[in-house]
Amino acid sequence: MSRTSRTPMTPDQLRDADRARIIHPYLPGSVTERVVMTEGSGCRLTDIDGRSYLDATGGLWLAQIGHGREEVARAAYEQMAKLEYFTSFWEFSNDPAIELATKLTSIAPEGLNHVYFTSGGSEGNEAAIKMARYYHHRRGETNRTWILARNKAYHGIGYGGGSATGFPVYHEGFAPMMPHVSHLTPPWPYRSELYHGEDPCDFLIAELEQRIAEIGPGNIAAMIGEPIMGVGGMLVPPADYWPRVREVLDRHGILLILDEVVTAYGRVGTWFAAQYFDVRPDIIVTAKGITSGYIPLGALLVGDHVAEALLADHGFPMGYTYNGHPVAAAVALENLDIIEREGLLARATEIGGHLHRELEAQLGDLPVVGEIRSVGMMLAVELVADRATREPLPMLQPLLPDVIRRETGVIVRDCAHSLVLSPALIMTEAEAKEAVDAMRQVLERVRPNGELRG
Amino acid sequence: MSRTSRTPMTPDQLRDADRARIIHPYLPGSVTERVVMTEGSGCRLTDIDGRSYLDATGGLWLAQIGHGREEVARAAYEQMAKLEYFTSFWEFSNDPAIELATKLTSIAPEGLNHVYFTSGGSEGNEAAIKMARYYHHRRGETNRTWILARNKAYHGIGYGGGSATGFPVYHEGFAPMMPHVSHLTPPWPYRSELYHGEDPCDFLIAELEQRIAEIGPGNIAAMIGEPIMGVGGMLVPPADYWPRVREVLDRHGILLILDEVVTAYGRVGTWFAAQYFDVRPDIIVTAKGITSGYIPLGALLVGDHVAEALLADHGFPMGYTYNGHPVAAAVALENLDIIEREGLLARATEIGGHLHRELEAQLGDLPVVGEIRSVGMMLAVELVADRATREPLPMLQPLLPDVIRRETGVIVRDCAHSLVLSPALIMTEAEAKEAVDAMRQVLERVRPNGELRG
Repeated sequence: MSRTSRTPMTPDQLRDADRARIIHPYLPGSVTERVVMTEGSGCRLTDIDGRSYLDATGGLWLAQIGHGREEVARAAYEQMAKLEYFTSFWEFSNDPAIELATKLTSIAPEGLNHVYFTSGGSEGNEAAIKMARYYHHRRGETNRTWILARNKAYHGIGYGGGSATGFPVYHEGFAPMMPHVSHLTPPWPYRSELYHGEDPCDFLIAELEQRIAEIGPGNIAAMIGEPIMGVGGMLVPPADYWPRVREVLDRHGILLILDEVVTAYGRVGTWFAAQYFDVRPDIIVTAKGITSGYIPLGALLVGDHVAEALLADHGFPMGYTYNGHPVAAAVALENLDIIEREGLLARATEIGGHLHRELEAQLGDLPVVGEIRSVGMMLAVELVADRATREPLPMLQPLLPDVIRRETGVIVRDCAHSLVLSPALIMTEAEAKEAVDAMRQVLERVRPNGELRG
Repeated sequence: MSRTSRTPMTPDQLRDADRARIIHPYLPGSVTERVVMTEGSGCRLTDIDGRSYLDATGGLWLAQIGHGREEVARAAYEQMAKLEYFTSFWEFSNDPAIELATKLTSIAPEGLNHVYFTSGGSEGNEAAIKMARYYHHRRGETNRTWILARNKAYHGIGYGGGSATGFPVYHEGFAPMMPHVSHLTPPWPYRSELYHGEDPCDFLIAELEQRIAEIGPGNIAAMIGEPIMGVGGMLVPPADYWPRVREVLDRHGILLILDEVVTAYGRVGTWFAAQYFDVRPDIIVTAKGITSGYIPLGALLVGDHVAEALLADHGFPMGYTYNGHPVAAAVALENLDIIEREGLLARATEIGGHLHRELEAQLGDLPVVGEIRSVGMMLAVELVADRATREPLPMLQPLLPDVIRRETGVIVRDCAHSLVLSPALIMTEAEAKEAVDAMRQVLERVRPNGELRG
C-alpha cells in the first residue's frame, strides 16, 4: 500500500492522536488545544478546519521566502531523485554541497572562506564551541577552554550551546551543564537599570574587560553571541557594541563566534548581521534562513586561521550524519537564488521599516507599549505596566499571542514581556497592516496589571 | 537567474572548490583526493568522473531502501509544495507529523507510546539525556544526574551525547565535557581479555552492579547504550546481556536509554533492536533509517511514565527548530511504507545471513580474519595479526577501505581494526558476492603486520 492510498485522518482524529502521541516542546499536558496546519502560501497558513492565519513569525523566524514555493519543492524533488544522500565524511563529497559552499563563501564577510555543514542551529553551536576550543588546543594553548556568553542568550539546546544559553529554564533539571561558561550582561539599552546609570556600551565593555581579567585571558577560548538577541526579545545592541567587543577580544586572543541562526540570510537587510554591524567574527553559525525552513540545514562559516588549525593533523574529529546533505544543499541554493533574484535583502529593510512605522503609528500611544525596536524584519514591542518606570507588563494567562491568534488569526510570538515579529521578507504592506491591526485590537484592551478587558 | 540555468562546475572545478571551501569531518587538509558523488540508484553510486561504486555502507548505515527512489522524492515534493514547514512548538502541529507519530507508536515496543521529534541522532541523544535527568528532577529525585555509558560507545557529538561517547578522540581538545558520565566495559566477547577469564556477561553485570554501588543508585539518572555498538565495530552482546542489564537498572530505579540510531527500522531484521533482544527500554533514540537518509529526521520513542513526567508543569522545555518537520515526516512515512510493502525486515535477516555466509566462505580462511559477526544487515570482519593471540591487525596507511574502493569500487568502512558493512536492505545476492569478492581481493594480500602485498 502506498502512502497516498492511506485513509486520511479526520480533524478530530488528528487532534486526538496528537494529544495522545506527541511530546511538543514547551507544551504542558494540561493544554488540550491544537492548531494543526495543513497548507501554506506566502505569509498565509491554513489549518485542518480550514481556518486561515497570517504568519507574522515566519515559522520560527526562518521563512525568508514565504511558504509554499513550488520551485523549491521542484529543486528538492530533482536532487532527491538523482542523489538523495551519501556521506560527506572523509574524502566523500557531492556536487550540490560544493556549489553551496562556493555560494556561501561568496556572500560571507571577508576572511570567512570555509564551510562546515550541520542540520540546524543547535548542532551548529555545539560545533562552534568545539571548533573554538580545538583551535586553541591545536595551537598549544590548551587552557583556553572558557566560553563567554550573555544572560538572555539563546544558543540552542545541545549541552554545549545550551550551557551558553542564558536562561535558567534551559538549565534547571538538566544540570550539570558543560562547565567553563561565564555569562555577561546583555545589551538592552531600554533596560537602563542593568547599567546602573552608566552608558550601556561603556558598562558592557568594562564588564567584559573585568570578566576576562577574572578568568584570565589565557583560559578563554571564545565569546559567543547573537548579533541581535532573538529569544531575549529582539535586543538590538548599540551600534558600537560589536566593534568594541571585537577590539577587546582581539587584544586577548579570544575568538568571536557570532550565532547568526536568526539574523543571517537577509533578515536584517544584509546577508549577515556581521555586515550590518561591521564586525568580523572568526566563526558564524547559521541555519534557519539558509533554506527558509524547507529542509533542515545549517552551515558554519569559518575563518581561514581557524580552518587551518582544524585541518591540521587528523582533521576535525566531529561530523553529523547529514553533513553536506545533497537535497538540503540543493534547496538552499534555490532559496538563496530566490532571495537574490527577488531582491529580498533590500525588501527586508523596506518592508521592515514600513512595519516599524505601522507599529509606531498604531501602538506607539498605548500605555502598555514601552519600546518598539527593530532591525530589518526582526521587530519587538516591549510591554510595560508603566511607561515612566518601565516596569515590565505581567504576562498572564491566556498569553497575548494566543489571544491575538484566536481573535484575529494573526500569529505573533512573545519573548518574556515583549511581542516579537519576524515575518517572511516577502510580506506585503497590506499584510503588515493586518498584523498590526490585530495587535492593536488586543493591546488596547490590556490593563497595566496585564489583565485583558472585554 | 534560476538555479537550473547556472553554469555547472566541471569535475576539476568541483574538486578544487571542495578542497578550498569545505571542512569535511575527519579529513586532514593534507589529503587531496576527493570522491564527488552525483547519482545513486539502489546500492550503486556514480561520481563526477562517471565511475560506478557499490555502496556496502548504506551511506552512513542508513540507506535501508537504497538510493534514488523516485516515489520518496515525489512524497517530498508534494508535501513541500503544500506545507513545507511551520513550527511544532507549543500547540502547533501538522498532519504528516501526527500521522508519523501514530505510525511509529504502532511499531514501537509496548509501552513506548509517545514521540519527540529531532533532526538526527546527535540531537536525539542530547534530548534523551535531558529527558532522563528531567524525569527524575520532576519526580523530586534531583540528585539523579549521572549517566552510565560504555567505552567504545558512540552517541553522537553534541556535548551531552558526546560525553557519553566512549572514545578519547571525541573528548581530546573539546573538554571540559558534560560532567557526571561514567563509562563501563563494552560487551565484546571476542576480546575475552577484557573479562579476565570470566564469562563476559557475568563480568559486565557484576561491573555494572559495582559501579552503581560506587556512584550511588540515588545519583544515577540513566544508562545509555547502543544495542549493538556500531562505531565500536558492530559489537554484538551476549543474548542475555540486555535483559540482565534491564533487571539491574530496574532494581535501582535507573532508566534505560537505547540509542537505536543505527539499529532501528529494519537493520537487524526487526523494527527495533529492543525487539530483537527482547528488552524494554524507557526511551529509544532513532534517526538514520527513519528516512533512509533522504532527509534529516530523528525521533525519540518515549515510555508512558517518562512522558507523564515531561508533560507535567510547564512541559518539556527544549525544542529544535525543525521539530515535527512536515516534509521530513512525509518522507519518513513513505520510507516506512516501502520497508513494509517490500518486506525489508525479513529481507534484512535473509540477505544479511547470506552476506554473513559469503564472508565466512571467502574470508574465513584468511590468517588476518579473526571473527566474522553480524545481526541482520550489520556485519563486521575483525582483523587480527594472529588468530591464536587475537592481537589486533595494525591499521596502516593507506587504510584498507581506501584500497578496496580504489581497486574495486566497493565502499566499506573501518572501525578500528574491523571492516564493517551495513548495506541497503534491498541488496541482491550478486551485489553481496561482489562486495565480498572485493574484500577478499585485498585482504588476501594483507600481511600480519598490516602491510599490503602487490
